[in-house]
Amino acid sequence: MTAPTGEFAFIDWLRRRTPADPRVLLGPGDDTAAVRITPGSPMLVTTDMLLEGSCFALAEAGPQRVGRKAMAVNLSDIAAMAGRPTAAVVSVGLPQTGGRSLAEGLYEGLRGMADEFGTAIVGGDTNSWPGPLVISVTVFGEPTGRGPVTRSGARPGDWLLCTGPFGGSIRGHHLDFMPRVREALRLHEVAELHAMIDVSDGLAADVWHVCTESCVGAVLWAGAIPVAEAARQLNDGLSPLDHALGDGEDFELVFAVSPTDGRQLVEAQPVPGITLTTIGECVEAGLWLESDGARRPLEPRGYVHAIS
Amino acid sequence: MTAPTGEFAFIDWLRRRTPADPRVLLGPGDDTAAVRITPGSPMLVTTDMLLEGSCFALAEAGPQRVGRKAMAVNLSDIAAMAGRPTAAVVSVGLPQTGGRSLAEGLYEGLRGMADEFGTAIVGGDTNSWPGPLVISVTVFGEPTGRGPVTRSGARPGDWLLCTGPFGGSIRGHHLDFMPRVREALRLHEVAELHAMIDVSDGLAADVWHVCTESCVGAVLWAGAIPVAEAARQLNDGLSPLDHALGDGEDFELVFAVSPTDGRQLVEAQPVPGITLTTIGECVEAGLWLESDGARRPLEPRGYVHAIS
Repeated sequence: MTAPTGEFAFIDWLRRRTPADPRVLLGPGDDTAAVRITPGSPMLVTTDMLLEGSCFALAEAGPQRVGRKAMAVNLSDIAAMAGRPTAAVVSVGLPQTGGRSLAEGLYEGLRGMADEFGTAIVGGDTNSWPGPLVISVTVFGEPTGRGPVTRSGARPGDWLLCTGPFGGSIRGHHLDFMPRVREALRLHEVAELHAMIDVSDGLAADVWHVCTESCVGAVLWAGAIPVAEAARQLNDGLSPLDHALGDGEDFELVFAVSPTDGRQLVEAQPVPGITLTTIGECVEAGLWLESDGARRPLEPRGYVHAIS
Repeated sequence: MTAPTGEFAFIDWLRRRTPADPRVLLGPGDDTAAVRITPGSPMLVTTDMLLEGSCFALAEAGPQRVGRKAMAVNLSDIAAMAGRPTAAVVSVGLPQTGGRSLAEGLYEGLRGMADEFGTAIVGGDTNSWPGPLVISVTVFGEPTGRGPVTRSGARPGDWLLCTGPFGGSIRGHHLDFMPRVREALRLHEVAELHAMIDVSDGLAADVWHVCTESCVGAVLWAGAIPVAEAARQLNDGLSPLDHALGDGEDFELVFAVSPTDGRQLVEAQPVPGITLTTIGECVEAGLWLESDGARRPLEPRGYVHAIS
């Protein structure tokens, strides 16, 4: 007796595609989902909302890549804690025309990315409205036995390392990046990570977030920062280094370790598929860019939502 | 060095207002939050997105009541499982002008409702965009030792009871309702609840959801359904009973119990502040309205997001 179209038809469609998962005691279709948590473990939780026209161009990206990104940005936050993702819920505000096929495309992208990291999609909320597409994803996870890696444990003298290059993500990387979940878990096994962040706002801005939370400063070494090829292809008057420092949405990890651990990581390169690079060090205060032996103040530029 | 306005200033403002909570290992300001979970308990999780112009009229309701509702609709879902809410995360898409004071108003409403039920706001995502206001809240909770009450345990012969009247919520109740968290916990203590739902889509539609999940039918007794005073004040050609059956957003609980438990609950009225009423019973199949001894088929009307 339920209408053949509408949100309940879509929920049915979803449920038929939701594989059985022993961690999921109740999936989509009840008032809440119920998920099994490892006894004694805290829960990690993160949420991100993507808004059409602001965070993505739907016509250009297509619904699957938007769904993929909406899941991946949250998984990247779990990676930044060196956590293991477990489950996700998804809310969407769909435009009134073409919403069903859009929802299916989004779901394919969400599902593919979630599957890549063993993350169950356990529930959500499907709405239609006269506005543009909005998608909000919340991901839960668990830290490993070594605990979560916060932003707040960096110390003066620590080395700052990163998992990959920066800049020019607007050319496609911001949609197609792979969250560094596996890399973070591997790093957490082999080194004592003092602090970690995923670069979403921009390298300078996110290093400054670590500084603020850790009550330290940082020097970035201009010549050492790996710059993405895409950053060199943007002919807009800014240097590739400017793009690397300020573009954001690279979703590489930056982390602070002791110089001993840093040296060891760069030599041993223990993380398959990526190159660990030292890009600077923590100091007592301030944010600095060092180039040819001289330090100048660095603005923690990056993407900031203007709220006035 | 962080800009004095913008999302980080707002996050700072939030953090100063976030009280210490022993369950919250990490609150706003890191890549994820970390929340302590009772060892061995599953996690209940629910999410709801409210969209300006579709779910509320901002100018009419004001930001505080919108924030309050965004939290309350999720708490109502936790109530429908007879769970205890623990923590919440909040994502917002703010219009570009006036976003800061809007965000503060929303937060006051969110905070007040969360505090009412001991729910910690542990994180979120703040965005601005050219579109209207969007707010998405995810709430976590835990079932009691008796486990969650799902939609799927009703049996033919069960009585259907409710916690309050229906209809006319558009006149204000949809913004100002109090989620039935305490009432559900009390009911779960004193009776064996076979199935439960909070009425958001509409009484007929939500009773039908219970029927579908439980593989039963239901008869609602027209003369027994408590009708809200507001439903009598809508002069739009529909009867007060029509409004009670179809309006939605009442956020009263409807639950199925054995006739013995049902009789006992109605006699003893063990839940302070509300009147428990029997409104029908479960049968083998179909959805029916009984009036003057005659049964006619009842459409599971209610609010459905049209997705085509």
